[in-house]
Amino acid sequence: MCNACLIESVKHSMLSRRQLFAGAAATGAAAVAMGALSARPALAQAQGKVLDLTHVLDEKFPTFDGAPGIAYEEAVNFDTSGYQLWKLTIFEHSGTHIDAPLHFSKDGASVAELAPESLICPLCVIDISAKAKDDANAMLEASDVEAWISAHGEIPAGACVAMNSGWGAKVGTPEFRNTPDGKFAFPGFAKSATDLLAGMNVAAIASDTLSLDPGNSADFAVHYSWLPGGRYGIENLANVGQLPATGATIFVGAPKHARGTGGPARVMAVI
Amino acid sequence: MCNACLIESVKHSMLSRRQLFAGAAATGAAAVAMGALSARPALAQAQGKVLDLTHVLDEKFPTFDGAPGIAYEEAVNFDTSGYQLWKLTIFEHSGTHIDAPLHFSKDGASVAELAPESLICPLCVIDISAKAKDDANAMLEASDVEAWISAHGEIPAGACVAMNSGWGAKVGTPEFRNTPDGKFAFPGFAKSATDLLAGMNVAAIASDTLSLDPGNSADFAVHYSWLPGGRYGIENLANVGQLPATGATIFVGAPKHARGTGGPARVMAVI
Repeated sequence: MCNACLIESVKHSMLSRRQLFAGAAATGAAAVAMGALSARPALAQAQGKVLDLTHVLDEKFPTFDGAPGIAYEEAVNFDTSGYQLWKLTIFEHSGTHIDAPLHFSKDGASVAELAPESLICPLCVIDISAKAKDDANAMLEASDVEAWISAHGEIPAGACVAMNSGWGAKVGTPEFRNTPDGKFAFPGFAKSATDLLAGMNVAAIASDTLSLDPGNSADFAVHYSWLPGGRYGIENLANVGQLPATGATIFVGAPKHARGTGGPARVMAVI
Repeated sequence: MCNACLIESVKHSMLSRRQLFAGAAATGAAAVAMGALSARPALAQAQGKVLDLTHVLDEKFPTFDGAPGIAYEEAVNFDTSGYQLWKLTIFEHSGTHIDAPLHFSKDGASVAELAPESLICPLCVIDISAKAKDDANAMLEASDVEAWISAHGEIPAGACVAMNSGWGAKVGTPEFRNTPDGKFAFPGFAKSATDLLAGMNVAAIASDTLSLDPGNSADFAVHYSWLPGGRYGIENLANVGQLPATGATIFVGAPKHARGTGGPARVMAVI
């Protein structure tokens, strides 16, 4: 269905609600109806809980290559100047962050060029935490996508599909990045799954680990296929275990610096 | 926009309408509660257009002190490594960005400590562009707030109040920061207005210029009163002239680095 049809549909829905209330003739209810129509007390506020999907970024937050993702230098001192601010050094792919197409394609879209419409999406969450308990490099496979669809219905075009591997609980421990015996390992998407999602015109995939590909990936197959297709990814998504499988909307506060290959993002959901 | 969202939206709309109708016989409060439960996130998508309120940040974007707000250093080269990323140097208060309480109070809340619920707000836009045409240091005064309320109704607690001074159109020109004869000047909020808004428990104020205070402010009265009260500000908001006076919801993708006094943010509205 087209946007125009959708708008019409919503208008009709609103109109009939108004008619309904004209008949209901209850003062309290009429006030509610007006509230629903005016939409000023924000839709998103009024209708659901806000869940922050962003980890706090600091010098100790785990990174893919092990080097600190952020460094602080005092630029203005409060005692001297009466206000304060930092000069930050940030490696783009640190903390809860975006991978733009440009990260894995020489001339792909930068993070500033992502369509704003693609940053507010229906959110589908696929839970692979059971198998990730047995295999630190577990992958979200095409079969997991198919099972999710059987249980929850179609994945809408323009959606964001997030992996819940249970890894968020490990973020303050060495196991977020390595097995107990020191092997670089964490769950990720399988290319079979992301190829399937690309065919459904999914806008974004999100991982609750350090990467879209699993830790033991030799070829970054998902990065090299998903991103150059003009889609984006989110890594180190937080609080994924608190999300419903379906029904949430994700707001992706991607940074907007020119030529950016990605960068730390503020990501929230309304449930 | 997707079929599944639409179907969900319609389903929920119908369901909530039914609930509301049933609730109409009961109390208004019960109906309000049901309304709050209805219409999940689909609304955020279904009901409107996404408007990006964020300027692209680059080395040339105007800054308060005149020094570049961002610098780029190549960290990984595509031809050498098959992927690419930047090491960025960012002064926190650059581009479309947040002022957290910590920016103007020694021990205030950092940008990482802002309540996520305060980052998704009803948005009220007050237009002072007519007087700003005659005075580059025009202020959004208490009387402008009162006139807005007379025209549009109360400003809800938890809202974000944005100033439209028309300055967004000047962003690529020297006049964004200076008068044609070179005087540092741009519109801002008056303390009389922000004191009034603080009393209404407004969560945030947003300016379409370089600062919350006007360019000729000698005392940063708004920064020193608004921010230490635990509220935040947004500076250099883009596309404010395309917003309705009321009815939009703002999504403030504030950065989430520890101890941050603020930082570049991705800000969007759903209209």
